[in-house]
Amino acid sequence: MDHVTQILLQLFAILLAAKLGNEVFRRLGQPTVVGEILGGVVAGPAVLGVYEINAETTLFAEIGVVLLLFQVGLETRLHDLLRVGATALTVGILGVVLPFGAGFLAAQLVGGDLALAIFLAAAMTATSVGITSNVLRDLGALRTNSGRIILGAAVIDDVLAIMILSVASGVAAGSFDPVNIISLLLVAVLFIGVVVIGGTRILRRRRSILTDPEFAETPFLPGMIVMLGLAVLASFIGLAAIIGAFLAGMVVGESSERHALEAEVAPVAAFFTPFFFGFIGAQVDIAGLANVDALVLLAAITALAVASKFVGAFVGALRQGRATATLVGWGMVPRGEVGIVVAGLGLSAGAIDSEIYSVVVGMAIITTLIVPPLLPAMVRRAERGRLEEPDDERVAEPEAAAEMHERAADED
Amino acid sequence: MDHVTQILLQLFAILLAAKLGNEVFRRLGQPTVVGEILGGVVAGPAVLGVYEINAETTLFAEIGVVLLLFQVGLETRLHDLLRVGATALTVGILGVVLPFGAGFLAAQLVGGDLALAIFLAAAMTATSVGITSNVLRDLGALRTNSGRIILGAAVIDDVLAIMILSVASGVAAGSFDPVNIISLLLVAVLFIGVVVIGGTRILRRRRSILTDPEFAETPFLPGMIVMLGLAVLASFIGLAAIIGAFLAGMVVGESSERHALEAEVAPVAAFFTPFFFGFIGAQVDIAGLANVDALVLLAAITALAVASKFVGAFVGALRQGRATATLVGWGMVPRGEVGIVVAGLGLSAGAIDSEIYSVVVGMAIITTLIVPPLLPAMVRRAERGRLEEPDDERVAEPEAAAEMHERAADED
Repeated sequence: MDHVTQILLQLFAILLAAKLGNEVFRRLGQPTVVGEILGGVVAGPAVLGVYEINAETTLFAEIGVVLLLFQVGLETRLHDLLRVGATALTVGILGVVLPFGAGFLAAQLVGGDLALAIFLAAAMTATSVGITSNVLRDLGALRTNSGRIILGAAVIDDVLAIMILSVASGVAAGSFDPVNIISLLLVAVLFIGVVVIGGTRILRRRRSILTDPEFAETPFLPGMIVMLGLAVLASFIGLAAIIGAFLAGMVVGESSERHALEAEVAPVAAFFTPFFFGFIGAQVDIAGLANVDALVLLAAITALAVASKFVGAFVGALRQGRATATLVGWGMVPRGEVGIVVAGLGLSAGAIDSEIYSVVVGMAIITTLIVPPLLPAMVRRAERGRLEEPDDERVAEPEAAAEMHERAADED
Repeated sequence: MDHVTQILLQLFAILLAAKLGNEVFRRLGQPTVVGEILGGVVAGPAVLGVYEINAETTLFAEIGVVLLLFQVGLETRLHDLLRVGATALTVGILGVVLPFGAGFLAAQLVGGDLALAIFLAAAMTATSVGITSNVLRDLGALRTNSGRIILGAAVIDDVLAIMILSVASGVAAGSFDPVNIISLLLVAVLFIGVVVIGGTRILRRRRSILTDPEFAETPFLPGMIVMLGLAVLASFIGLAAIIGAFLAGMVVGESSERHALEAEVAPVAAFFTPFFFGFIGAQVDIAGLANVDALVLLAAITALAVASKFVGAFVGALRQGRATATLVGWGMVPRGEVGIVVAGLGLSAGAIDSEIYSVVVGMAIITTLIVPPLLPAMVRRAERGRLEEPDDERVAEPEAAAEMHERAADED
C-alpha cells in the first residue's frame, strides 16, 4: 500500500469512527462532539491503532478547527462582540491569570524546576474555543450574550497565550527577552485591529467584493482564500491559526452574500471537523497513565484546571448575572487541542517529561469531554435569566433591532 | 513558522495561484483548467517556489482528483455506461495497446534497456480521465455518448494499467510472475463487478439508505465515507483510487437524494480540485529540460504520445461515427497525473534516469494542456453529428426517456 493510500485509509477510519460515535451519542441524547472524540479514542493508537497522529492527519485536524472557527466567525458580527468587550476582556484576563497561577504553584509543590512550572502553567491556561463554540452552534446559542463573551474572551486569551508561550520557550532555552515579548504582543494586537477594522470597512464599502472576480460565481472560494490567508498570517505572527480564521469569518461575514457563503461552507466544515474531534480523542495515551501515581496526578491537575479556569472566567463575567457567568465559566474550561499543543511544545523543549505530558494531555481531553453535556441546561438558564433581568433587556432590544437591520441589508 | 503553518501557506498559495490562473483564462475565453495548471507552474518550484511537492500537497491533489471523479460518478448511471460498453472496451484496449507499442519501440530506438522500455511505454499508455471529464462537465457533456465512452474506456484503461505496471515493476526488480499478474487482473475485475452491481442493487432496493443513520441529516457524509472507503479499497488492490471514487459516485448516485448530495459535494470538490490542477502544473521541471537534446526528445515523445493514443482511441470508437471518434480520441490524450506517477515509479525503481523523467513529466503536462482548448468545438460537432445520423437516433431516444424516468424517480 503506498503512502497516499495509507493516509486515505486513516482519514476514512477516523471519519467513520467519529460519525459512528456521533450516531451512538445522538441516540443516547448526549452531545455528539463527545461521541466523535470517543470515536477517535477507539480508532486511534490507544485501542485499534488504525488511525495515527502524523503530519497529514494533524493537518486535517487543523483545517477542521480552522473551518469551525471560520464558520463561527461568519455568524459573529463585530459590533456584537464589541458590545460585550469589557466583560470579554476581564473573562479573558482572569481566565488566564488564575489557571496560570494555579499551575505554577502546583508545579512548585511537586518540586519541578522553573521551565516545568511555566509549561505546566501555560497548558493550564489554554482554552479550546472550538469545542464550546461547536456546542453553542448546535444549540443555536452563538449569538447570545454568553456566546459572544466566550468568543471575545477566547481572542484575548490567545493574545495572552502568545506572551506566556514566548516566556516559556525563552525560559526552556535559557534566555528571556522582555523587549521581544512586548513586541510580539504589539504585533498581535495590531494584526487583530487592522484585520477586523480594515477588513470590515472594505467589505462594508463594497459588499459584493467577494464575487467581483469572474471565477467566483459564489463568494465561497474567495472566502476560503481569505480564511487560509489570515490563518497563515495569524500563525506566522504567533497567534493561533484559528484566531485568524475566526477574524476572516467575521470580515467576510459582512459580504452581501453571507447566507450563500454559509450554505457552501457548511458541507466543507462538516467534512473536516470530524477529523479535528477524532484527532483530539486519538491523543489519549492509556499506557502513559497506567500507574496510580499518574492517575492521582491526573485527577489533581484536572480538578485544578477546571476550578481555576471556572473561577477566573466566572468572576470575570459576574457583572452579566450569575447564570451567564456560570455558562461562560464552564464554556472556557475545555483545553482541547490547545492544551495538547502546549504540552507537546514543553515535551520537545525538554521542559516536561513524558509522564507529565500524558497527564496534561489527559487533563486536556477530560476537560473537553465534561463540558458539552453541561452546556444545554446552562444555556437555557442563562437565556431565561436575561429575559427576566430588566437591566439586560436594554441591551437585548438594540441587539434584535441591529440583527433585523442586518438581515434586511443582506437581502437587498 | 511551524510545519502546519508552512503547509497551510503552500495550500493558500496554490489555491490563490490556481484561481488567478482560472480568472485570466476565463477572461481570455480559454479553458479554465489550463489556467489553473499554469497557476501551479508559477507558484511551484519552476518559478516562485512558494508551493512544494510534498506528502501533504500530494494528498490534497489526490483528494482533489478523487472528489472530481466522485462527482463525475454521481452524474453517471451504470446502464448508460453499459450501453456504450462494447465501444468503451475497444477504445480502452486500442488506446492502451498502440501507445504501449509506440513507447516500447521508441525506447528500443534510443537504445534503452528492457526496464526503460517498459516504463516509458507504461507512461505513454496512461490516461488522466480527470482533465477531460472536468472539461466535459463544464461543457455539460458528461451525459453524452462520447462522455460515457471516455469514462468507460478510462475504467478499462486502468484495469490494463494494473497489468502493465505490475509487469514493469517485475522487470525492474528482475522478476516476472505471470500468475501474479493474472490474479491481480482477476481481483480488479471482480472488485469493479461486485461494487458496481452489488452496490447499485443495495441502493436501488433501499434508496434512502444513506440517510438512515441519525447523524446523517443529508446523504453527504455517508456518501463521503463510501467514497473514501472505495478509493482506499481500489488503491489497495492496485487500481487507481480515482476509479474507486468514480464507482462510489455511480453507486451512491442511485440514492433518492442524489440532487441534495450533488449540491453538498459541489463546494467540497470546488475547494479541493484546484489543488489537483495546481499540483500537475507544479511538476514542471524547467531546469531538467534546459538543453536541446532534452527538448528534441520531449517533442518526439509528445508527438508519439498524442498520435498513438489518438489513433488507438479513434479507431476504437469509429463505429460511433467520425465526429464522436475524434472527440473520444482527443479526450483520451491527456496523461496528467497518471503519466507523472508512472514516471515517478520508474525513477524510484531506477529504470529511468532523471532526464527521461523530466521528459515524460513534460509530455504528461503538454498532452494535458493541449486538449482542453480543442474539446468545446469537438463536442458541438459530435453532438450535432448524432442528431443527423439516423442510426444514432434510435439510441438517443431511449436514452432521453431513461433520463426522464430517472428524474421522475428522483423526485419521488
